[in-house]
Amino acid sequence: MIGLSKRSRYAVSAIREEDLLAEKLRSEGKAIIKLNIGDPAAYFPTPKYIIDAYIEALKKGHTDYSYATGIPELRKAIAKKYRERHGADFSEDDVVVTQGVSEALQFINNSLIDPGEGAVLFTPYYAPYLSYLKLSGGEVVEGHYREEKNWDIDIDALDERLRSGKVKRHLKYLMVTNPNNPTGTVLGRKTLESLVNLSNDHDLMLISDEIYDEIVFNGANFTSIAKLAKGTPHMIIHGASKCYDSTGFRLGFVIVPGEDKASTDVKRSLRDMANLRLSSNTPAQYAIAEGLNNAAEHRKAIGEMVKRIEGQVNFAAQEINRSRFMKTAVPNGAFYIFPRLNMEKLKVKDDKEFVQKLLAEENVQLARGSGFGAKDHIRIVALADRETLSTAISRIENFCERHSKREA
Amino acid sequence: MIGLSKRSRYAVSAIREEDLLAEKLRSEGKAIIKLNIGDPAAYFPTPKYIIDAYIEALKKGHTDYSYATGIPELRKAIAKKYRERHGADFSEDDVVVTQGVSEALQFINNSLIDPGEGAVLFTPYYAPYLSYLKLSGGEVVEGHYREEKNWDIDIDALDERLRSGKVKRHLKYLMVTNPNNPTGTVLGRKTLESLVNLSNDHDLMLISDEIYDEIVFNGANFTSIAKLAKGTPHMIIHGASKCYDSTGFRLGFVIVPGEDKASTDVKRSLRDMANLRLSSNTPAQYAIAEGLNNAAEHRKAIGEMVKRIEGQVNFAAQEINRSRFMKTAVPNGAFYIFPRLNMEKLKVKDDKEFVQKLLAEENVQLARGSGFGAKDHIRIVALADRETLSTAISRIENFCERHSKREA
Repeated sequence: MIGLSKRSRYAVSAIREEDLLAEKLRSEGKAIIKLNIGDPAAYFPTPKYIIDAYIEALKKGHTDYSYATGIPELRKAIAKKYRERHGADFSEDDVVVTQGVSEALQFINNSLIDPGEGAVLFTPYYAPYLSYLKLSGGEVVEGHYREEKNWDIDIDALDERLRSGKVKRHLKYLMVTNPNNPTGTVLGRKTLESLVNLSNDHDLMLISDEIYDEIVFNGANFTSIAKLAKGTPHMIIHGASKCYDSTGFRLGFVIVPGEDKASTDVKRSLRDMANLRLSSNTPAQYAIAEGLNNAAEHRKAIGEMVKRIEGQVNFAAQEINRSRFMKTAVPNGAFYIFPRLNMEKLKVKDDKEFVQKLLAEENVQLARGSGFGAKDHIRIVALADRETLSTAISRIENFCERHSKREA
Repeated sequence: MIGLSKRSRYAVSAIREEDLLAEKLRSEGKAIIKLNIGDPAAYFPTPKYIIDAYIEALKKGHTDYSYATGIPELRKAIAKKYRERHGADFSEDDVVVTQGVSEALQFINNSLIDPGEGAVLFTPYYAPYLSYLKLSGGEVVEGHYREEKNWDIDIDALDERLRSGKVKRHLKYLMVTNPNNPTGTVLGRKTLESLVNLSNDHDLMLISDEIYDEIVFNGANFTSIAKLAKGTPHMIIHGASKCYDSTGFRLGFVIVPGEDKASTDVKRSLRDMANLRLSSNTPAQYAIAEGLNNAAEHRKAIGEMVKRIEGQVNFAAQEINRSRFMKTAVPNGAFYIFPRLNMEKLKVKDDKEFVQKLLAEENVQLARGSGFGAKDHIRIVALADRETLSTAISRIENFCERHSKREA
């Protein structure tokens, strides 16, 4: 029998798993409010100066394979941005350009994880972290963001667990998203320093996914791990999709700044993985090199985008917190809201059923929290304008009322 | 200790593994003749009508995530091409657009292979087939193209081996490239029918990589497996890179035409894998949809390209066959030449050393045959013009003379 692999069942996308149902509803003439995917380019036109650079690259004939690790112009621009903005010190040789963060995750797991090994993720985590780890045969050891501590990381509990000797598995890395997807938490410097210490103490490669580094608001400050982790083996995941508003270009970056043995080995392996698939999209790389290098245009574009996002996130969080069925912390980064559902008041089995029925009945598409390691939650993307968000939240509220338990 | 995964050592690219040395030589002012990578867009400008469609997509704002499996326009265009050109019968729902053939290979191995399982590849095979299989924990069972039979496939030997009971491993698929990379062999209808029977007899998914389907010459005829394999679980790998001269766009296609259980399962799994990484490059998909749909422009572009390739391949094969150090069959598809080195006459250890020293001493970059499962061979890409090919072959000849054994 041909049969699927056992591991194929880990390819579960909490973000896109309702796409087929949404498609069916659309074909029946329903208009779906799509708040399931973090796609700024669907709401904010990609800045014209980036589009112009893309067109210029096409006209110049940059349509062949690029260097496997990315064109030097782009890798230099990334190193420059991190130097100027985040006080980090690495060169273009420490950067590998990937086909989105997803490919970065595959490269990292291929490089570090053999079946039976493991890694630390903090719930709630970006859903594909787990899928790619498990597709590689790895297992997760969970740390936790604590909702009751405004989604700060509980480092002591994890440290204790790792010291207890109960985790027998060989753990390779610890991965964190900062600002976090799905909670929007921006980690403070103290928490980050504790993560550096924890990684050192337990001999883990520290990986920080900083793709939302410039989407920070409500007075928060972002600190890159690259500034704090010198001497500790670490990696930064980044990408063009969010801050350069170009999701459909599919460009991610992996940065390995260190010169220690683990970092040097990983750098070589990432290059091998990149060689194997030959190239990322070439003209898009020229577009994003300009996106990074033209600081004046970028400042303008990101400034306007973050201002609108801040307003929408705060508005949506406020609306949600009026409901007796949901409660959310107010995010200060990224563009997601991650409310907890009050399941005691609801007649739905779990967040998965909630999201499915909501789509079928109210035509609002969300992602379920359990896909991010946090059941009884929903992830709402706050990129649509206030009117759309308001309509969506009203529909969610209607849905909850209709499926509420009678009060005793 | 953090340490690399054991499986990371399988990320070996015979195509790009000398890139670092080539880079070093370039930085020393050397001009490298780069015949290691099959990159038509580096030699033939991507057709203007495709570039125009790309630019139009960018101007229209198609910069957000696309459907995970690809825009319907592109998937429909692929189904239409296969219907009209290859007599195949499938719909756009049977097509998944990937980030190049490399991602297709990852999706396929993730979907079918668990550690310890296996697949059949025919030596010489496209090098990354093996790498992605082994990264997935799979092992290869080798069938063979026979050089002495003008690189036709030896099906009986493989059939016998599979019937012998000596292969204990659970085998999932059998993968063939037609026209073949690296030998340029176009498989005849009879061979293809035997492969269909073999796949049925041994319960293997038959996978045909047809990315060079329109690059066929010297009187050969191409037949798609899609026409012959009805009722047998099968997949077609294809892509825009070669026939649409757009390597840097990174667009591949996987097609699963069947409605049997294995095909339906695989189709679902491929969709899951696609969902997980969200999207391929969006504007490039619009460009290639036009590339496929504008039949008149395409016919003109591919006609000119194939005519030049035919001339260059025949010229290079002839030049090579003058040498007492190399011998090659004359290809009738793709754009590679795969000569056997006469190792008895050469003072180099193996094809790997040959390729390394040739690059260092003569500044010609090739790929080693052992990376394709056929030692004592070299792969030469015949996309450069005759003058460049002539210079390269002269340098190879000089290199061989300098490293030849004294006659006894």
